[in-house]
Amino acid sequence: MSTNPAKPSMRDSLVAAAFQLFLERGYEQTTIDDIVRTAGVGRRSFFRYFPSKEDVVFPDHEQSLADMTAFLAASEDSDDPLVRVCEATRLVMRMYAENPTFSVQRYRLTREVTGLRTYELSVVWRYEKTLGDYLRTRFADRRDGTLRANVVAAAVVAAHNHALRHWLRSGGQGDPLAEVDRALAFVRETWSPDAGPAGPAGEQETDDVVVVIAKRSTPMWRVVREVEASLGDS
Amino acid sequence: MSTNPAKPSMRDSLVAAAFQLFLERGYEQTTIDDIVRTAGVGRRSFFRYFPSKEDVVFPDHEQSLADMTAFLAASEDSDDPLVRVCEATRLVMRMYAENPTFSVQRYRLTREVTGLRTYELSVVWRYEKTLGDYLRTRFADRRDGTLRANVVAAAVVAAHNHALRHWLRSGGQGDPLAEVDRALAFVRETWSPDAGPAGPAGEQETDDVVVVIAKRSTPMWRVVREVEASLGDS
Repeated sequence: MSTNPAKPSMRDSLVAAAFQLFLERGYEQTTIDDIVRTAGVGRRSFFRYFPSKEDVVFPDHEQSLADMTAFLAASEDSDDPLVRVCEATRLVMRMYAENPTFSVQRYRLTREVTGLRTYELSVVWRYEKTLGDYLRTRFADRRDGTLRANVVAAAVVAAHNHALRHWLRSGGQGDPLAEVDRALAFVRETWSPDAGPAGPAGEQETDDVVVVIAKRSTPMWRVVREVEASLGDS
Repeated sequence: MSTNPAKPSMRDSLVAAAFQLFLERGYEQTTIDDIVRTAGVGRRSFFRYFPSKEDVVFPDHEQSLADMTAFLAASEDSDDPLVRVCEATRLVMRMYAENPTFSVQRYRLTREVTGLRTYELSVVWRYEKTLGDYLRTRFADRRDGTLRANVVAAAVVAAHNHALRHWLRSGGQGDPLAEVDRALAFVRETWSPDAGPAGPAGEQETDDVVVVIAKRSTPMWRVVREVEASLGDS
């Protein structure tokens, strides 16, 4: 869906007509013929934009996947790979955030129609693969590079989807980009404990962190001494 | 597929007939009528065991999901949740390992047929959800419990699938359980650096460790309180 209201394209009209009908009479009960009739276009126009009825439900993922791929391809070797995949994942959330009403309507539809849930799983898998491909290249010199790439990509996607789901369930209230940043911060802190909070580049916190690791049997006075010694380093 | 060769059930015969035909003439070209004719049973018998043609390709996942759910339900509060989900995930690998030839044939089939890949994604999602549900319960008292549960479940599934894919691509050579243990060890070391090597239960280290992370500016009394609170959990 274009975000430019001045220029509703034929593609936008088809999406709008489809959602109007899905909400009115249900997804299964709506045919492609119904959609083109409501949009006032021919049947062939539908298939010029969408391979199937399922695709009209997710009109922006192809563009979003292309944007993610281009963003990752434009990475420099000096970019932290974990930061980069988190930023790439923000692009997806930004797509959802651009149109909260539509995103929430689609979420409800997807909960009801098994075929759409399955479609969504395959889209999620493509995002995860795109992130994993990039990370595999960046981790190529590590012994566990492929495994690490796959696990980190899955974790990033899970964190994104956690935030997305929470926002969609709330009916699209609040700031989804802040939510996804909080969730991605968990992943970044997992693998780059010194990276600071997630978020747009340049927002690193300066306040650094002390980590004390002690066996449970360690007496408290020793723990305090260790903490004091660490603090003394500053 | 039963592993008891003495008692080939009607269900086993249907699976065997289906795979014989899928390999001979291709998945799409095989009808359910072809399968029941080859197995020498009636059409209704097929649907007694399998809702669709896709389900006959994955005859063991329902049992495997039920085994995983039961295994997790039998957990004690003293079980390390991360160790427990890794062991639950080993059960799935064990299912694949029981019949390498069948697993490799199915893997090749799944690469070729889009509908089967999609089916597989929905099965993987159900495993991930099962692990996530368990972890959400176990992490319920943590502020980031739900997020942590979702991310850890995704990481465990990704590690398992990494090992599984590697083994299947090799044509089922080597020890898949050793491979999955290596992959799961990466996840365990990520979130429980002191957990020791992954593997079957009973290899836990006994002297556990308290980790306190604090901003450098945290006053000492707050650090001590956090340490005391953590020690108090024992």
